[in-house]
Amino acid sequence: MRAITLLTDFGTADYFVGAMKGAILSINPQAVMVDITHEIPAQDVAAGAFTLLAAFDTFPERTVHIAVVDPGVGSERRPIVVAARNHLFVGPDNGIFTYIYERDSSFEAFHITDEKYFRQPVSTTFHGRDIFAPVGAALSTGVDPASLGPRISNPIRLFKSVAPQIIHIDRFGNLITNITRDQFKEARRLLLNGTLISAQRNFFGENRGEIDEPFLIWGSAGFLEIAVNGGSAAEFLDAKRGDQIRLI
Amino acid sequence: MRAITLLTDFGTADYFVGAMKGAILSINPQAVMVDITHEIPAQDVAAGAFTLLAAFDTFPERTVHIAVVDPGVGSERRPIVVAARNHLFVGPDNGIFTYIYERDSSFEAFHITDEKYFRQPVSTTFHGRDIFAPVGAALSTGVDPASLGPRISNPIRLFKSVAPQIIHIDRFGNLITNITRDQFKEARRLLLNGTLISAQRNFFGENRGEIDEPFLIWGSAGFLEIAVNGGSAAEFLDAKRGDQIRLI
Amino acid sequence: MRAITLLTDFGTADYFVGAMKGAILSINPQAVMVDITHEIPAQDVAAGAFTLLAAFDTFPERTVHIAVVDPGVGSERRPIVVAARNHLFVGPDNGIFTYIYERDSSFEAFHITDEKYFRQPVSTTFHGRDIFAPVGAALSTGVDPASLGPRISNPIRLFKSVAPQIIHIDRFGNLITNITRDQFKEARRLLLNGTLISAQRNFFGENRGEIDEPFLIWGSAGFLEIAVNGGSAAEFLDAKRGDQIRLI
Repeated sequence: MRAITLLTDFGTADYFVGAMKGAILSINPQAVMVDITHEIPAQDVAAGAFTLLAAFDTFPERTVHIAVVDPGVGSERRPIVVAARNHLFVGPDNGIFTYIYERDSSFEAFHITDEKYFRQPVSTTFHGRDIFAPVGAALSTGVDPASLGPRISNPIRLFKSVAPQIIHIDRFGNLITNITRDQFKEARRLLLNGTLISAQRNFFGENRGEIDEPFLIWGSAGFLEIAVNGGSAAEFLDAKRGDQIRLI
Repeated sequence: MRAITLLTDFGTADYFVGAMKGAILSINPQAVMVDITHEIPAQDVAAGAFTLLAAFDTFPERTVHIAVVDPGVGSERRPIVVAARNHLFVGPDNGIFTYIYERDSSFEAFHITDEKYFRQPVSTTFHGRDIFAPVGAALSTGVDPASLGPRISNPIRLFKSVAPQIIHIDRFGNLITNITRDQFKEARRLLLNGTLISAQRNFFGENRGEIDEPFLIWGSAGFLEIAVNGGSAAEFLDAKRGDQIRLI
Repeated sequence: MRAITLLTDFGTADYFVGAMKGAILSINPQAVMVDITHEIPAQDVAAGAFTLLAAFDTFPERTVHIAVVDPGVGSERRPIVVAARNHLFVGPDNGIFTYIYERDSSFEAFHITDEKYFRQPVSTTFHGRDIFAPVGAALSTGVDPASLGPRISNPIRLFKSVAPQIIHIDRFGNLITNITRDQFKEARRLLLNGTLISAQRNFFGENRGEIDEPFLIWGSAGFLEIAVNGGSAAEFLDAKRGDQIRLI
């Protein structure tokens, strides 16, 4: 049996997440369900994409990840399922799986057109409950993703370039880049918004006392991060998501 | 095995919800437990009643729903279990199951007087842990609700009238009515606080550009809702919970 | 199979808790996981210690409790597992299990030195995912805690004295003491910060109308608490965690 994770921007104060889980249990009463988070900022697809990337591969292979940050619910955007790295991903085709495509270029994506598992009647406002949760539950019982609809080769991506850049800013103002250990092997320094950053630390506490020098640190999501001691690197460097980086 | 849902106003910062789940696992170590929400506004029984209504029937039949919004804990209010729509509901007799009684007029309610499953000693301040959680766990293992105490015919309801009215205001200021598709079949318009509302939309995004005209929309809980584009319908219409509606 | 609880200060907005659960399922795909809370104030080991104490013994014996409030992550503080009261506890050796040691003086503690179950590579910033979650998962499958490393006799405690004192202040400003029913058998009154408190109540609602008289109440965690009607006892008595109490 595959586990199921849930990631949304629904918050936890309303009935929304509970209703998704009810829809899942109605199809797979034995489902093991895990919340990644429901506090993605409202409609922030890029933040959802990063958080999914940072969490998914701690789960066992064959896990089904349901990700619903869906500003286009009710419009023509496609519901899709993606098979990559021996995990399955279910959600809207709006770029939320961008990093998954980057991680596994041999991914397969399918447009979900078979309504067999949809919760009827399908509302126009809550596809999390009516489409993504029940389809995810069906996949967790072993349904073949290829049986749900035609394969597509052009799922939406959040960006064209994979040039080094800031992909996320966490609540402490740390800047998460898309730079991996492989890419940083021959570089020693970063240039971001006119500031050269070369100091490197092994953990956050190490920098105490050296106020306000930005430093590099390998984050727990596997990417190079930029931090400053006792403050926000985003403010210190006037940085925002999408800012380009030069490796030197 | 029946699943168990939990709905409370305890928040998630303290040990309260964890303690309820510990009490459940102590009776049913295999329990499948799902949080609906623990962020019902403190002591707001009516908000809890609506949220329970909106979520419960996405769950499989035979689910046990534990609902604890309980301003009267420690007083003489009765602990009850309700059987309705082939679901079970456990909580205080203070109106939190009002909409369940409305949905299934052949419901059965029982006053829980048998203390066999209570966690001893029963505190005066935390019946969620000491009464409702363990009784819910016992029900999930197949205990007959009729064995827990005498049947009662007069459980407390939040309101006498089922006239069309506002039953909930969500965080966006949308007004949720108690009007179902059946009731709205022959009507075309609503009158609320002197404003006639006739526009109807299929999803929220559709209304972009038409600022400030209130419109009707079928919400995902199955009720007619009143919304305005880009703002709060509650503020725009100066509406509050309990406001009466005329169907025209 | 043993259940697993999680208690951290990670919040629920990021991928941290999801990643811990993924690491657990990767070792024990059948794990029953329960959140106690992830909203311990950042790095507040004492608040984590109290919340763990208040929740743990509602769970069945043989439960594994993973507690990660860990300001020293990446430094030399030891990862430990504690066996007490037929429960297991996993976390940093920084005092978070202080009350567990108090409750069961025959506890056993082990320094986790065997890296067999660690998630590799072990990051310097996220031992919750890389050490505590996978070790907790291994314990839930029946691994012997004594096999993980040498027994230690001197785990860190938050305080030396067990004199009567305030150990926690909840969100309502109620003061939780470390005084149990046994200790209070022969006392009738408390002296705290120059104020003598003798009134005793059975539940919070009982005191309505008697404004501003502090009273004693047995809290649901099993300790004597000090409250005032309609306000914060902490403010009223100018009390803070650690304040000493005299029993009279």
